[in-house]
Amino acid sequence: MPAPLTIGLIGAGRIGRVHAANLATRVPGARLLAVADVNEAAARSCAEAYGIPGATADYHSILDDPAIQAVLICSATDTHAQLIEEAAAADKQIFCEKPIALDLPTIDRALAVVERAGVQLQIGFNRRFDPNFRRARQAVERGEIGQPQLLHIISRDPAPPPIDYVRVSGGMFMDMTIHDFDLARFLIGSEVEELYVRATTQDPAIADAGDVDTAVLVLSFANGVIGTIDNSRRAVYGYDQRVELFGSAGAVMIGNNYPNSAVISTAESVRRDLPLNFFMERYTESFVAELQAFVEAVIDDRPVPVSGLDGRVPVVMGLAARRSHAEGRPVRLSEIVG
Amino acid sequence: MPAPLTIGLIGAGRIGRVHAANLATRVPGARLLAVADVNEAAARSCAEAYGIPGATADYHSILDDPAIQAVLICSATDTHAQLIEEAAAADKQIFCEKPIALDLPTIDRALAVVERAGVQLQIGFNRRFDPNFRRARQAVERGEIGQPQLLHIISRDPAPPPIDYVRVSGGMFMDMTIHDFDLARFLIGSEVEELYVRATTQDPAIADAGDVDTAVLVLSFANGVIGTIDNSRRAVYGYDQRVELFGSAGAVMIGNNYPNSAVISTAESVRRDLPLNFFMERYTESFVAELQAFVEAVIDDRPVPVSGLDGRVPVVMGLAARRSHAEGRPVRLSEIVG
Amino acid sequence: MPAPLTIGLIGAGRIGRVHAANLATRVPGARLLAVADVNEAAARSCAEAYGIPGATADYHSILDDPAIQAVLICSATDTHAQLIEEAAAADKQIFCEKPIALDLPTIDRALAVVERAGVQLQIGFNRRFDPNFRRARQAVERGEIGQPQLLHIISRDPAPPPIDYVRVSGGMFMDMTIHDFDLARFLIGSEVEELYVRATTQDPAIADAGDVDTAVLVLSFANGVIGTIDNSRRAVYGYDQRVELFGSAGAVMIGNNYPNSAVISTAESVRRDLPLNFFMERYTESFVAELQAFVEAVIDDRPVPVSGLDGRVPVVMGLAARRSHAEGRPVRLSEIVG
Amino acid sequence: MPAPLTIGLIGAGRIGRVHAANLATRVPGARLLAVADVNEAAARSCAEAYGIPGATADYHSILDDPAIQAVLICSATDTHAQLIEEAAAADKQIFCEKPIALDLPTIDRALAVVERAGVQLQIGFNRRFDPNFRRARQAVERGEIGQPQLLHIISRDPAPPPIDYVRVSGGMFMDMTIHDFDLARFLIGSEVEELYVRATTQDPAIADAGDVDTAVLVLSFANGVIGTIDNSRRAVYGYDQRVELFGSAGAVMIGNNYPNSAVISTAESVRRDLPLNFFMERYTESFVAELQAFVEAVIDDRPVPVSGLDGRVPVVMGLAARRSHAEGRPVRLSEIVG
Repeated sequence: MPAPLTIGLIGAGRIGRVHAANLATRVPGARLLAVADVNEAAARSCAEAYGIPGATADYHSILDDPAIQAVLICSATDTHAQLIEEAAAADKQIFCEKPIALDLPTIDRALAVVERAGVQLQIGFNRRFDPNFRRARQAVERGEIGQPQLLHIISRDPAPPPIDYVRVSGGMFMDMTIHDFDLARFLIGSEVEELYVRATTQDPAIADAGDVDTAVLVLSFANGVIGTIDNSRRAVYGYDQRVELFGSAGAVMIGNNYPNSAVISTAESVRRDLPLNFFMERYTESFVAELQAFVEAVIDDRPVPVSGLDGRVPVVMGLAARRSHAEGRPVRLSEIVG
Repeated sequence: MPAPLTIGLIGAGRIGRVHAANLATRVPGARLLAVADVNEAAARSCAEAYGIPGATADYHSILDDPAIQAVLICSATDTHAQLIEEAAAADKQIFCEKPIALDLPTIDRALAVVERAGVQLQIGFNRRFDPNFRRARQAVERGEIGQPQLLHIISRDPAPPPIDYVRVSGGMFMDMTIHDFDLARFLIGSEVEELYVRATTQDPAIADAGDVDTAVLVLSFANGVIGTIDNSRRAVYGYDQRVELFGSAGAVMIGNNYPNSAVISTAESVRRDLPLNFFMERYTESFVAELQAFVEAVIDDRPVPVSGLDGRVPVVMGLAARRSHAEGRPVRLSEIVG
Repeated sequence: MPAPLTIGLIGAGRIGRVHAANLATRVPGARLLAVADVNEAAARSCAEAYGIPGATADYHSILDDPAIQAVLICSATDTHAQLIEEAAAADKQIFCEKPIALDLPTIDRALAVVERAGVQLQIGFNRRFDPNFRRARQAVERGEIGQPQLLHIISRDPAPPPIDYVRVSGGMFMDMTIHDFDLARFLIGSEVEELYVRATTQDPAIADAGDVDTAVLVLSFANGVIGTIDNSRRAVYGYDQRVELFGSAGAVMIGNNYPNSAVISTAESVRRDLPLNFFMERYTESFVAELQAFVEAVIDDRPVPVSGLDGRVPVVMGLAARRSHAEGRPVRLSEIVG
Repeated sequence: MPAPLTIGLIGAGRIGRVHAANLATRVPGARLLAVADVNEAAARSCAEAYGIPGATADYHSILDDPAIQAVLICSATDTHAQLIEEAAAADKQIFCEKPIALDLPTIDRALAVVERAGVQLQIGFNRRFDPNFRRARQAVERGEIGQPQLLHIISRDPAPPPIDYVRVSGGMFMDMTIHDFDLARFLIGSEVEELYVRATTQDPAIADAGDVDTAVLVLSFANGVIGTIDNSRRAVYGYDQRVELFGSAGAVMIGNNYPNSAVISTAESVRRDLPLNFFMERYTESFVAELQAFVEAVIDDRPVPVSGLDGRVPVVMGLAARRSHAEGRPVRLSEIVG
């Protein structure tokens, strides 16, 4: 058994704590040595909950610690690129939550630093590690559905985020659809060349914030596949995460996950409980699996499964989506330059 | 009990025989008195099979028969408009298969003749009468899903028609998608203002014929709903006819119909038999119900449920779809003029 | 095309009218010439509704009519055996609703008369002709599930019959379970040797009438299969008709039939409409298919698919069930003698 | 936060390691201090894998350690009762895998010792903690299905255990059905008064060992519910664990758990992958939840949720099942005395 990968966590918010819990209990081969958060109390609380030896308000003490081989960047989005650069300069292996940044020049500078440093960078697109979507991808790879022709992604949240977050999120395409962009690329294994957006806003507060909350996107892939993404910020029945892939030899459909399999028949209807409400419940296993994959790749010195480029392309797609929506026309990704 | 509606059938091909069988056995209040087909043997065979008193090669004998109150026009598409005009001139109530014609001037002339004659004209968009799609529409009308926001129609055929038919069909949008255009209008109860098409061709013979066989369309409705239609000429697992409607208070999904409910578990998989293969099996009940609705509306002197205008609009949408595909941009329906 | 089989219908009640409608419209090869009912108005109404030339209060005029080749006996249960004997004596081919009678001596006398007359007798166990249950049987015959080992039948009615009917019905085992006894024999293709009953009564009126309304039966087949039947007179969610067959190579499960495939998701649940409410809706197709099979077998002079013996055995099982319930022990069918 | 409950594990076999892993990572409030196994290498391997401070071949060192408050007994079945007695004498709180023993005198002596010692004893009937079965029980408790009337448990293993184990297992009813006996009591909340067994043996090796491998049991509950259990040692499609509860106001059905939600349609069938293969995958969450419940009950000094009596009754039922099978008749539980 190789020595465990020693890790420092930067950012002890919601997703940071998920990763801390998983590293503490469900990811063999990793050892979380320290946690940093600008809110020192948050860092301490996280350290206590998950048995992490060190807690600090200053992430530099993590970057400076030679005993720490890798960092998890779970801080606010606008700090991601800077932290990636500093971590790379400190020769740490890097796992960073999405997105790297909301603009391409910042992303490209960070990726250049990573490349020069020769460290690995994995982006937190966790849905690739969901057992359902992996099975859909597997159906393609095994030839179970032949040559893919059509793709549909349904991706609806149970409720919009706080309006203050909406204002700084980069907009729905950059904040929410970005996961679907990554999933589309993962499932099809080809790049999107052009996309077209049709969007509306149902929620007046979101309209005031200048954003949309309901959209259909059409993706045209280099390999000829046509895809759609259906987004809503508010599905009253809960988190709706489905995929359909249609090909020359068949189709594969991924349904929602439920808290139980109970079907109840009464004088009114045949019904079941609502699907798992949100990503913390729906994607539990994927958060474990992405970290496990990161840890194993670093230990084995193999390429991580979601690269820096995989972090860049969905941002390009998000920028193209914004432009398509603004101009009411299909936009080629080649139109989007830093 | 009122006197039965007396009917003459023009066209004894596949769909004509379906209607003859239904009138003979499952549509109370109707009496099929004669059938005409340019192929007189076909007319006679149909008459014999379904107990129809008269069979003729010449449809004029039906139009000239004062004992016949209504006609069913089931002949080749390019004869529909002319027959509608002649039937209206003969003061017959009219049921005509879709489409009225492939161009607007012809359609508009026929509708003008119908209007002047003061007869009724119902177009054969049978899917509106399918119990599943009616239930989806009912969910909207009852407020079960609140205000509709998103619509998806999956409509895939098991196999393309003969290539000779493809050449004269007006193209996939006019021949196949036209049913989905009608269904979309029926489900949403609002008009489409703009549409965008992305299409490919998988089958070389269809490419040679200048048509597409795989497409995604985005529909923008006047009431703000965004819809998609997904079409394929070849779904290897059979006829795929599904709908999803998403609204402010929920969603309704319509699945496929199957020949049985058997689920078989073996050492390999948990599986069921393929869905009903094509429209003759899948839409059996809708063919009965549309004729029943026509017969009752005429007898009661109420408006028929699918009007001449309902026959015209999907043709406009088909023309817009062709243009969107040709020009690679969203097309407003207002751009399409006769 | 052979000459149609000419038929007389005895009994114009609910099931008689179902057969009349099917013969009029959906059973090629048959011609219904007359209908008899002790209530002459019922006979006339039936004749008018389905275009039957003759209507009479006296069934003898049907038995005496040499133009009539076959009779359908749909009268009250206590007249079945007598009518079978008279029809056989009149050299008619016979289709008779279940049960032949509630006691074995009466059944055996009727079957003996039929055998001497050399006519055919088919019993109306329609469920054998349901597409779902046929598919389950087919799974056995094709070897899809290997050697059968376990069988479960769920058979629950939406509501009990009128209490006056309960009193003369012969009890739930003879009136309701009898269909499940037949289905069990059909699915397994082997005879039951022993059965055990556990039953309760929920409804006080049924208790007063000396009957049960809720039961589980265990069937031991000659070929080693163990089966259960689950009966209830009152399933508030509607007619519940399911089957599961488990074998050495897999299992087949038959679910309920629904009026539509709509699945509706709201803030409360993911639900669908209730299953088809009762046998008239659930088994529509089976009523057509059983008559079609009778007509074809008689015309082709082949054995009918549900014989007089098939009508006798379930009555033996019903008598055994009564005894098992009364004595609280497993009862072998060989204990039941006329 | 209260001090953690300190625990010693006796038995480092398959289920012991499951509990060790869960205590190490997923059960807050517990601290596993030592593991004992007669195979000392197994104890050491377990200790190393899950970070347990102590490992020993002699369980007495656990019982003698005053720092250890509770023990988990996961050793061979024939040692359970003796270990319960010794642990109670050492004043430890006790969690013991099922069954306590295969005979009532042994069980009763152990329970008496526990009672005198005033410690708690929880039996490892984990299925009560499965989210699906809890939801079924909840449907009863909330009145969603009214008054329960009928219960069905389908419980089939993917493959029989090694024949050497079959020989010492106490037979299928005591080894496998015992879980279903407990589940039945849990779901209905009433005691079984009588049961009837019908069983066969498909596998010659199991027949040689004097056991059955296929069975249907009928349970008669004190509150009038009638239940069935369907067992098979070999379901080729995997672990089949379903429940149906029918009541005066509706029914609840629990289906199997699957590794993913993918539905794949091809030219052959519409299919999904096999259900989770066996209890380690199917009941993962229930193993965590039962330990969590034990730990919390002990810390809070509340009664544990599965008592020593809950461990005794299913053994009585297993003995009654054996007798019913041997004698071919329903057996009342009151006939079974130590």
